[in-house]
Amino acid sequence: MPILLPLAAAFFAQAATAKPAVKPPLSPGEIANAAPAAAWRTIPDDDIVVFTLANGRKVIMQLAPSFAPRHVDRMRTLATSKWWDGTSVYRVQDNYVAQWGDVSEKKKLPAGVADTGPAEYVRTGGVPTVRMTRPDSFAAIAGFDPAGWPVASDGKKSWLTHCYGMVGVARDLAPSIGSGSELYTVIGHAPRALDRNIALVGRIIEGIDALSSLERGTGKLGFYGDAQKPTPIVSARLASALSAGDRPRFEYLMPGSPAFAKYLHARENREPPFFAVPAGGADICNVPVPIRRKT
Amino acid sequence: MPILLPLAAAFFAQAATAKPAVKPPLSPGEIANAAPAAAWRTIPDDDIVVFTLANGRKVIMQLAPSFAPRHVDRMRTLATSKWWDGTSVYRVQDNYVAQWGDVSEKKKLPAGVADTGPAEYVRTGGVPTVRMTRPDSFAAIAGFDPAGWPVASDGKKSWLTHCYGMVGVARDLAPSIGSGSELYTVIGHAPRALDRNIALVGRIIEGIDALSSLERGTGKLGFYGDAQKPTPIVSARLASALSAGDRPRFEYLMPGSPAFAKYLHARENREPPFFAVPAGGADICNVPVPIRRKT
Repeated sequence: MPILLPLAAAFFAQAATAKPAVKPPLSPGEIANAAPAAAWRTIPDDDIVVFTLANGRKVIMQLAPSFAPRHVDRMRTLATSKWWDGTSVYRVQDNYVAQWGDVSEKKKLPAGVADTGPAEYVRTGGVPTVRMTRPDSFAAIAGFDPAGWPVASDGKKSWLTHCYGMVGVARDLAPSIGSGSELYTVIGHAPRALDRNIALVGRIIEGIDALSSLERGTGKLGFYGDAQKPTPIVSARLASALSAGDRPRFEYLMPGSPAFAKYLHARENREPPFFAVPAGGADICNVPVPIRRKT
Repeated sequence: MPILLPLAAAFFAQAATAKPAVKPPLSPGEIANAAPAAAWRTIPDDDIVVFTLANGRKVIMQLAPSFAPRHVDRMRTLATSKWWDGTSVYRVQDNYVAQWGDVSEKKKLPAGVADTGPAEYVRTGGVPTVRMTRPDSFAAIAGFDPAGWPVASDGKKSWLTHCYGMVGVARDLAPSIGSGSELYTVIGHAPRALDRNIALVGRIIEGIDALSSLERGTGKLGFYGDAQKPTPIVSARLASALSAGDRPRFEYLMPGSPAFAKYLHARENREPPFFAVPAGGADICNVPVPIRRKT
């Protein structure tokens, strides 16, 4: 096991030294794991979609009905009607997005699913209750809502932020808002310029590496070229439609809980012995809301 | 070709519509490509290292001697002595880093290369001359220097920023500063908390997807598990050591040039028809300095 690490890993490093060990501080992840049961909230089964890829990997998405209720309704319809079965991941652009759905664009959408309607890019209210110490380059306010979402705001309106792993609805030019059948997830540095310009509808909560480690597309914008094979999607199901034994359950660390405050503080102020200079702040996308399997 | 895109792609989209096309604005990339020859600067051959992986892919790194002169000297020695030949990429942590070097930690370092000495995490001066419109969550000033590097500063000192593709020197706890033999590159959202805590020594300028699309490590911190195979590195050479025919040459769009100003403005203010709401700012890591092969 190599001990040369760009990350704290004080634990490993100290195991390798002969000097008396100073107990390293808890890492942000350890703080989250140590949080009491009361700080965790269960994610509803109806807000979870399980995509199974042809290589056996599962990619699990949490939906964000509070920000994009109509899109989420349509996506539940797409899952219930098994529409994504037999579609594929057909675009992987490095440091940007992986995108999936019907590459042929010929598959008929289920009744009630269309790419038109009022946009869900911004909502009234929803100003984050837990805030980052410092504002970022994109919004006056950035923080987290009690439902566990990363949110930016101007103080009156709010919107989800394009952080790593967030899922958005691919769309054509307006008036298209996207049907929700073609989705992308962020696999690089947060492309926050997309905020307020496109609907974010959720995030990948497990298995994102099954998308982020895919071969990059050789075509324009990372679309797969003729010689490349899109990754088939075998099935997509709401967790609520799975049998109890197959149903994955998740919980998130609730913003507003004391444990979340501790976690956020640790992310904004990484500590010695590895970190000598604490930043005193962080980007909202450096603070993924802790989510874990519920056992 | 699918037209449902999360990115502008107004060009494709308009090709598919029957309405009269409005000429879309130049994208940031198109602005860079249209820049006059005078706006481009050649990267010295001695600042380029070509890593060749066992799968035939090449990963090309630019060194940053102005920020980490001693590390860069040592890395040139490592390349010249063919030290990296036969090492491997042994760690790939999702949304964080890919790391390479000698996983056994037993390979003897060349004379003059050690993991000790004064740290090169911060330099005096070097305050960026071209600045982002808005500060970020990590530093009062962020921008670019004439040598084409993304830089943060407090107005007196400056340091490179941990953006996607930047290369740093893995290290143990202080007094280790890392030898430069074990390197990592960022393959996710910028982990800026590492700024000023570890030496950045360059960036990947071609072939980063050969690292970012590798299978993620199943061990702690993304180290490869026993059942996984690190990707062998066949060779690493300074471009200056290659024959003229094999020598890749690169140029960057110079910060301070009018074309760079236009490029930065476009990145901070994405335009209609796809983008309805310009952000009016961007994170420094959303503004990769344009670098291209010199023909």
